[in-house]
Amino acid sequence: MGRMMKTMDGNEAAAYIAYAFTEVAAIYPITPSSPMAELVDAWASTGKKNIFHQPVRVVEMQSEAGASGAVHGSLQGGALTTTFTSAQGLLLMIPNMYKIAGELLPCVFHVAARAVATHALSIFGDHQDVMATRQTGFALLCSNSVQEVMDLAGVAHLSAIKGRVPFLHFFDGFRTSHEIQKVEVMDYEDLKNLLDMKAVDEFRNRSLNPERPVLRGTAQNPDIYFQQRESANPYYERIPNIVESYMNEINRITGRDYKLFNYYGDPEAENIIVAMGSVCETIEEVIDYLRSKGEKVGLIKVHLYRPFSAKHFFQVLPKTVKRIAVLDMTKEPGSLGEPLYLDVKSLFYNSELKPLIIGGRYGLGQKDTTPSQIIAVYENLKSPNPKDRFTIGIVDDVSYTSLEVKEEIDTTPAGTIRCKFWGLGSDGTVGANKMAIKIIGDKTDLYAQGYFEYDSKKSGGTTISHLRFGKKPIKSEYMVYDADFVSCHNKSYIYHYDILKGLKDGGTFVLNCSWNERELEEFLPVQMKKFIKQHNIQFYIVDAEGIAQEIGLGRRINMIMQAAFFKLANVLPVDKAIDYLKEHVEKTYGRKGEEIVKLNYQAIERGINGLVKVNVPDHWANLEETEEEKTKDEPEFIKRILRPMARHDGDDLPTSAFVGMEDGTFPLGTSAYEKRGIAIMIPQWQTDNCIQCNQCAYVCPHAVIRPFLLDEEEKRNAPETFETKKAVGKGLEGLEFRIQVSPLDCT
Amino acid sequence: MGRMMKTMDGNEAAAYIAYAFTEVAAIYPITPSSPMAELVDAWASTGKKNIFHQPVRVVEMQSEAGASGAVHGSLQGGALTTTFTSAQGLLLMIPNMYKIAGELLPCVFHVAARAVATHALSIFGDHQDVMATRQTGFALLCSNSVQEVMDLAGVAHLSAIKGRVPFLHFFDGFRTSHEIQKVEVMDYEDLKNLLDMKAVDEFRNRSLNPERPVLRGTAQNPDIYFQQRESANPYYERIPNIVESYMNEINRITGRDYKLFNYYGDPEAENIIVAMGSVCETIEEVIDYLRSKGEKVGLIKVHLYRPFSAKHFFQVLPKTVKRIAVLDMTKEPGSLGEPLYLDVKSLFYNSELKPLIIGGRYGLGQKDTTPSQIIAVYENLKSPNPKDRFTIGIVDDVSYTSLEVKEEIDTTPAGTIRCKFWGLGSDGTVGANKMAIKIIGDKTDLYAQGYFEYDSKKSGGTTISHLRFGKKPIKSEYMVYDADFVSCHNKSYIYHYDILKGLKDGGTFVLNCSWNERELEEFLPVQMKKFIKQHNIQFYIVDAEGIAQEIGLGRRINMIMQAAFFKLANVLPVDKAIDYLKEHVEKTYGRKGEEIVKLNYQAIERGINGLVKVNVPDHWANLEETEEEKTKDEPEFIKRILRPMARHDGDDLPTSAFVGMEDGTFPLGTSAYEKRGIAIMIPQWQTDNCIQCNQCAYVCPHAVIRPFLLDEEEKRNAPETFETKKAVGKGLEGLEFRIQVSPLDCT
Repeated sequence: MGRMMKTMDGNEAAAYIAYAFTEVAAIYPITPSSPMAELVDAWASTGKKNIFHQPVRVVEMQSEAGASGAVHGSLQGGALTTTFTSAQGLLLMIPNMYKIAGELLPCVFHVAARAVATHALSIFGDHQDVMATRQTGFALLCSNSVQEVMDLAGVAHLSAIKGRVPFLHFFDGFRTSHEIQKVEVMDYEDLKNLLDMKAVDEFRNRSLNPERPVLRGTAQNPDIYFQQRESANPYYERIPNIVESYMNEINRITGRDYKLFNYYGDPEAENIIVAMGSVCETIEEVIDYLRSKGEKVGLIKVHLYRPFSAKHFFQVLPKTVKRIAVLDMTKEPGSLGEPLYLDVKSLFYNSELKPLIIGGRYGLGQKDTTPSQIIAVYENLKSPNPKDRFTIGIVDDVSYTSLEVKEEIDTTPAGTIRCKFWGLGSDGTVGANKMAIKIIGDKTDLYAQGYFEYDSKKSGGTTISHLRFGKKPIKSEYMVYDADFVSCHNKSYIYHYDILKGLKDGGTFVLNCSWNERELEEFLPVQMKKFIKQHNIQFYIVDAEGIAQEIGLGRRINMIMQAAFFKLANVLPVDKAIDYLKEHVEKTYGRKGEEIVKLNYQAIERGINGLVKVNVPDHWANLEETEEEKTKDEPEFIKRILRPMARHDGDDLPTSAFVGMEDGTFPLGTSAYEKRGIAIMIPQWQTDNCIQCNQCAYVCPHAVIRPFLLDEEEKRNAPETFETKKAVGKGLEGLEFRIQVSPLDCT
Repeated sequence: MGRMMKTMDGNEAAAYIAYAFTEVAAIYPITPSSPMAELVDAWASTGKKNIFHQPVRVVEMQSEAGASGAVHGSLQGGALTTTFTSAQGLLLMIPNMYKIAGELLPCVFHVAARAVATHALSIFGDHQDVMATRQTGFALLCSNSVQEVMDLAGVAHLSAIKGRVPFLHFFDGFRTSHEIQKVEVMDYEDLKNLLDMKAVDEFRNRSLNPERPVLRGTAQNPDIYFQQRESANPYYERIPNIVESYMNEINRITGRDYKLFNYYGDPEAENIIVAMGSVCETIEEVIDYLRSKGEKVGLIKVHLYRPFSAKHFFQVLPKTVKRIAVLDMTKEPGSLGEPLYLDVKSLFYNSELKPLIIGGRYGLGQKDTTPSQIIAVYENLKSPNPKDRFTIGIVDDVSYTSLEVKEEIDTTPAGTIRCKFWGLGSDGTVGANKMAIKIIGDKTDLYAQGYFEYDSKKSGGTTISHLRFGKKPIKSEYMVYDADFVSCHNKSYIYHYDILKGLKDGGTFVLNCSWNERELEEFLPVQMKKFIKQHNIQFYIVDAEGIAQEIGLGRRINMIMQAAFFKLANVLPVDKAIDYLKEHVEKTYGRKGEEIVKLNYQAIERGINGLVKVNVPDHWANLEETEEEKTKDEPEFIKRILRPMARHDGDDLPTSAFVGMEDGTFPLGTSAYEKRGIAIMIPQWQTDNCIQCNQCAYVCPHAVIRPFLLDEEEKRNAPETFETKKAVGKGLEGLEFRIQVSPLDCT
């Protein structure tokens, strides 16, 4: 097709398109939508032009309530106005959404869909926020992947302008908003050609202006409110055809095939899923897998959720369908079913076809939705008594909604290279991986996907980067469970997490550590050693911290580890990789001076040369696993919940684990048990310098540095290495002073 | 039953019950819910005790967003907390509602359901606000009448406390919140006996307290959010049975029969309606009427809308049902159907019974829903091709959703006395009518209903009071269309409105005017005269303004007109009525001193004695109607829309009247045509006193008083009565000055 390919995330794709059509952006950034607002703001400040040859005017308000009010006002002033939001932010916009829709104003909200705070806050993706707005009169358009965001965001703007109905364009928070994919970029010129400029002019002429004053936003009595509310029906009736015609235009440009509803699968399928969001990509992968085994399965992907066009739905529905499972990424307690499920049942109620219809919830708070879960949905669907209102992704042993996953199945197409990197929040791992994807995506024919798993501890928390590379677009919208390559950037993780879980036989493992082979023998956990030998893992070590300190990069190990990745992962020839890496360094750090560029060049070379292939001893295969010491005295909550969560096994906790704490109540004092041990450097008490001011304790935000006083007996009983000094200050006579650091709590 | 009967409106009933169970009320009053908050505040300030023997602590916040936040915080502090709201106010509470539900906190929101602002603001009743919260996890309980509010509000509180799910208890704004009915009052002692005090103690012990600290409101990662969200399912599963058991307790006390869903009608009905809200009362009246004609019709009234218990629904559904019409008092543009309709279709999708199910919208922005409209619903239902997604109450000639009303049918039970009073906002008519209802309700065995139709011009707008009295509870939840008695408190109305429309043959009409019989001949419109004679109307006049001024009551004519009503309406013997009126005056004005009391006594006596029965001349029957002069030069909007609205005929405007202004846009300058002529007194220019300061023009909020300057020629051409005086001020030499008042615009 020859159009430009670029690696970017969903937020960047949405912001790129939104910028084209936006005259005013009224913003109040909120996770995971923030980068959209931030990018638009950044571009505007560099003077980037929209399709009207103007930079966007960006206004940041005091909250999302204010942002939506500013959107409303700006639209009435005749400016094409856009905002970006998520979750609680979107909830605050609801009152203005009714007004904007009621006044038929052509704006677009781009929403990185996210859970709303209930028993607990969740900053992660699901559709609870979007579903809370489905009654406002906005059109709701869903994009399922970064490429779809790029392709369909413009459809939202174009249709809103032509149809006079505001659009909420949404895609999955984090999973799409933060996933990096190699996508074909839409050209602003193409978009401009599609714009109904007459409609833009009419919109501008309708604006509130003293030159042609009108009255708008009146208070109406029961005599006319209802009639006027119904008089707008034709605008909604027109939207499906308007969206369809713009999708056809986009199809013409991109060569793809967007419809209001897209069908994927066997043309004579009996069992289909109806869904929207990134899960559709995974479902397609599963369908390819199941069809290769002869199963007649399919999927209807919802793009235009509101207005819901029954006609267009039935146009794509295979006549052979007997059973339908509807997946909703939301939960509405007390309802007869989640929204899409109710819609689909309503669709068929008066139709001749009367398939069995069941519904289920998935992915709440961004629970990872895997191919095996989707297979469970199809299995349930064809079982004699399919479970209705099921859940997937959890084990629900309280109300028994969950479907059983019988086996974990790998549906990723052959030839996909899958990599997993364990890093520490703010250690640079995620940034380095993004760079790697950009290099591979931009410099090769390979498609690339990068997804970054954070916990909400953010800085100092664990990050796991999930990277995939392949010859075909990558649809695996779930974590990497079967890896070809695992890299661990923090050696303490090997004691806490099952780092190698899922690493394939013969796969590659790189550990950043300062150990030599003898020390490996001593320090590596038995299970890891056994796994390495038994699965014939290609095991490498590199002393990235040592190298970084040696060449003067301090704690910044990311370039070293990235070079090691390019050396080992074989995604592209290592010489080329080095050239590209250096090119990227030049581009990124060039402005900071030659010194920095040189340092990074060194890091790349040392990363490649510093790699040591470990000669894995045969006896590792037969080591005896010592049973882990049971810490019997720990409180129930620690044993049952905190320990698995800390091990990254929280996903395995069943619902029953939370009985008695359904309202989100947790006990206090749990960090006394967590002891993450993530610090790379730890403060040391300098007895000679210490004036016992205790300021160090005062400033430590994690209370890791604490002063102690000891009496004579305590001092006597302390081990010899327990250094103290005479306490100074009135009333402290005869006491000893010590600053004690808690290394395992330190960040 | 022997329990206390009292006349009150729905807001008072809700506030009365809420007060019993409330420790803290966090409020921000909004129409039409305001009286609930205001009453609770007033009672608290007088030290009234709740069932815990404490006055309620009332906190008024800066907005409903703040109120809901305060509710959340107060609940976590261990206080049983309540709020009251409507419309946009409820929308602002949505974010906190998710939190309150997620944390399983037992609060109650009492909501006077109201339209939300879309193309225009509407302060009137419908369910758009409540439906915007159906996904939050609150239980939704609906009361259909003032008596139901009294009976079921407590079920909301009791169930929330026992079940740990917050409740939104709602009833129709204005129609129920402001309708006065004679109801049986619940006793606080009875409520106290029903309270699960153990659950209250547990709730208090779960509160956040430094003595027993816990962690609540955490941020959760994808590992556990979904499981914990599902762990609360059992709380929702228990709610239907908890509500049912409290309804049974209420039934035991009241002798009534509340269920989660109540069936009313033929036990073997084929055609039924499913609905909730005050319309159910009207539907019952229609069912009585239709069954008396042999039709097998019925109604399922929804009380507990969330959690929606399919089991309980099917328990009341007659097995004979073949066709169902679901009525929704909301509109969700772009959806496949409104919420209750989707729910009912979902209910039946997998059931063996597969009735035809259609849905319709009614009553948006409080469009009056009449028996004839309900008959149209049943007619449509049994027609060969029933219209789905219909509307009633309007003529929709744009998207043709509306059902045709073939004839207006009066379904009010025989023996009901129906009265209609035309007053001017803030002239005291509504207050006087409320007093009349209280007297009749409290002092007789009659049931009484009062509903007050305001326009949103409020002070200075028209008020129409609709009163009904009868031996049985009054279910007519619509305006009075067939009146026994009409009273007009402002004589200018006879030129603007069809005051006598619907007055029955032989009915009574009282006109407040200073005219004598000769002047009546001259001033009454021809149509009115014809109607009076042809329909044998008993026509009375009373010069209430003259009497009021004479005895020193100024403009307060309400007591005079009320006495006239009691004299003529024959609801109770006039002597008794006078005693009760005086008793009421004593009670109401006693504190203001003997003088005021005496004045009102005089007003009562003069009202009765001042009534003049008009000898209606025979020739009135045969007067020739002169065709109204067509004012051809008026703009289209004025002719097509403003004129009918001003005549109180806005209800007759079809949807097509608003084509081209679907977004709520109206032209400016329409008050130049409205000329309501409602002022009783009009300012007069005192030329002698005038110093030409123009302050009078400055302070007139309606720009009715305006200063003018005339040159010599203008002065010459002015009529002789056009008084002016020499203009003062530099540069005004040779000009004449005049203050001109516009009487028809004056309020």
